[in-house]
Amino acid sequence: MWSILFLIILSAIAFLFTDELITNLKELFIKSGLFGIDLCKVNKSKVPEAIGVVSGCVFLVTSFLFIPIAFGYSLLDRGNFPHNEFAESLAALLSICCMLLLGFADDVLDLRWRYKLLLPTVASLPLLVVYYVNFNSTTFIVPIPLRQYLGISVNIGFLYYIYMGMLAVFCTNAINILAGINGLEVGQSVIIALSIIIFNIIELTGEQYKAHLFSLHIMIPYLATSLALLKHNWYPSKVFVGDTFCYVSGMTFAVVGILSHFSKTVLLFFIPQIINFVYSVPQLFHLIPCPRHRLPKYSAETDLLHASRTVIPKKDLNFLNKFIIQVFSLLHLVDKIEDRDQITLNNLTLINLFLIKLGPTREVTLTIALLLFQVVCTCIAFLIRYPMASYFYDVQSKT
Amino acid sequence: MWSILFLIILSAIAFLFTDELITNLKELFIKSGLFGIDLCKVNKSKVPEAIGVVSGCVFLVTSFLFIPIAFGYSLLDRGNFPHNEFAESLAALLSICCMLLLGFADDVLDLRWRYKLLLPTVASLPLLVVYYVNFNSTTFIVPIPLRQYLGISVNIGFLYYIYMGMLAVFCTNAINILAGINGLEVGQSVIIALSIIIFNIIELTGEQYKAHLFSLHIMIPYLATSLALLKHNWYPSKVFVGDTFCYVSGMTFAVVGILSHFSKTVLLFFIPQIINFVYSVPQLFHLIPCPRHRLPKYSAETDLLHASRTVIPKKDLNFLNKFIIQVFSLLHLVDKIEDRDQITLNNLTLINLFLIKLGPTREVTLTIALLLFQVVCTCIAFLIRYPMASYFYDVQSKT
Repeated sequence: MWSILFLIILSAIAFLFTDELITNLKELFIKSGLFGIDLCKVNKSKVPEAIGVVSGCVFLVTSFLFIPIAFGYSLLDRGNFPHNEFAESLAALLSICCMLLLGFADDVLDLRWRYKLLLPTVASLPLLVVYYVNFNSTTFIVPIPLRQYLGISVNIGFLYYIYMGMLAVFCTNAINILAGINGLEVGQSVIIALSIIIFNIIELTGEQYKAHLFSLHIMIPYLATSLALLKHNWYPSKVFVGDTFCYVSGMTFAVVGILSHFSKTVLLFFIPQIINFVYSVPQLFHLIPCPRHRLPKYSAETDLLHASRTVIPKKDLNFLNKFIIQVFSLLHLVDKIEDRDQITLNNLTLINLFLIKLGPTREVTLTIALLLFQVVCTCIAFLIRYPMASYFYDVQSKT
Repeated sequence: MWSILFLIILSAIAFLFTDELITNLKELFIKSGLFGIDLCKVNKSKVPEAIGVVSGCVFLVTSFLFIPIAFGYSLLDRGNFPHNEFAESLAALLSICCMLLLGFADDVLDLRWRYKLLLPTVASLPLLVVYYVNFNSTTFIVPIPLRQYLGISVNIGFLYYIYMGMLAVFCTNAINILAGINGLEVGQSVIIALSIIIFNIIELTGEQYKAHLFSLHIMIPYLATSLALLKHNWYPSKVFVGDTFCYVSGMTFAVVGILSHFSKTVLLFFIPQIINFVYSVPQLFHLIPCPRHRLPKYSAETDLLHASRTVIPKKDLNFLNKFIIQVFSLLHLVDKIEDRDQITLNNLTLINLFLIKLGPTREVTLTIALLLFQVVCTCIAFLIRYPMASYFYDVQSKT
């Protein structure tokens, strides 16, 4: 366990280094044309964009440097070296490195959607091969109430690999679409990372302690470098994190979920992202008109954010979108204004939903509200994972 | 061996895909500000830069897709799965992926020299750990004439790891400084790749066939994607390859050299790059003034390239640079013009050396001349490696 202590020290250095590096490289990013304008501020100065690549690189380098330490004792006894665990670490880093590259390429080149969906799938391939070789457990434990129908466990075979591949795609994109106000991307990722770390620490006493140790080896440097990024990205943002950060974060969570066998628990920590995704589906699939940006609208006079809106001409109404609008209205999930020719709705994102519930809000208050919601969801996740799981599973067979 | 056949088919598809992708993405690169102006052309239109990232990504994806094939039979018998070989593949891809990321970051951000030296070192760390775990052979076989002094072999221990780390740094930068005219970077890399492939095929009948098969698994998709890039980068270049390509290429060669134990042979294929490096040393270390660019000078009237020149004020002459200039003059390696206050020399690159020997030349002729030189050097390398090596080594202990 001394290796964890070493990792914490290494990560603390990584935090300081990332902090320093971001300060030093900011101007370089602007000079290279990598900058954006903060639409929710009066001041329209250039803010460096894609700074997630800096924290991502330091995260990778820290993990590289930690490899010889993680395998410290084993390195001295090369006959019994755990090649399979080593391959796991390498596959994890390879997938993360790929996403770092893809994210940065996306920030620079603004890639099309098909690449964004294709490449995480390919990047998770080494991961799936490692999973196949080291575990190949493709069995779901069936919840107790369903066992009379399905038996104790169901082996879904190849479908399990599809599930894991999709997990990587989902995680990378889910964070990316719950974004747009200062500090939200990094804030939510930090809370998810902390949730995973707490979960790992709880499970360190269990049978699967090795898998959870592996997860900690990845999550601790990730958390440290992300915290350094948050320092600069918090309201008012001095840097933007870019798709780079969202992709790296999503892949990192998917990697530990897959290789440490708690992918369902990782999904529990993604409740706000899942809600945001489901809520966004009608716009993502263009059942309801989706403008290029769904960011909240900033009012310079009041310094408050308002929900942004989309307009549906009544002639474009069909059974499906009418039904969706009715259901969402009934559930009080949209703010609908109807006149003769058209219906206007708030854009269907969790951020706008918060704004119609809270009313016009300062940006930093909104970020804090959303992050608090993330924390509440983490608590719910732990409730589901621990006390409630025993109703559905034998304690031994929890996964 | 059927896996090689499959790899060749996969690589052929990768070639076509790279070709198509470069055509499709060219405009996107220009739109994103990633472009350069070809200084050796009359036409000053924008040429997309850093396109090496496209061929590099396809190379990586091809290698990912090939992993399940490469380990085909072993995957069915998971009890005896060669985890160590799998870890080798992953470490190789990880190092290459890191260099792809670094190269692209360098093209976008124009990083400082210290990062260019630091990051290949860090990127080669997983490689060195794999080497330590799987082989840890740090012994040099001593050439026969020296054996009476040093014994049959010398174990240089930790220094061997320093040597391998420096090999990665050298390979990545050596290609990068023998560059600047259309098609040269990719051309030389293709010839080196072909040389390595020929060497691997020869050695496939030997004891170390597994190591050489491993090398082929990496070199074949590399060659295919680089050929597609060459098609677009050949005179007159429609795309520039960027540092990205040079870094990926250098790391790829270093990776196979290290993991397949023929790093000295790889260095033999780098003779022109070594000559260029040694010849450049006085300028790289600023013993002789080094302008920002040492590219040949283009004459629009004649469409010919001339050697570019550097000026040394006589008052700046000291013992060291005077000595260097004298030695180079004696060996007819510089074109020196001396007047009352100053000396002008050609810039010390192999490209300029060719120009002072050949006289003003068309760009495409110069590229072909340099590539022919690379081919001749490969032949010399094979001569040193095979007939001559038996004078210095027992045939069995060749490395």
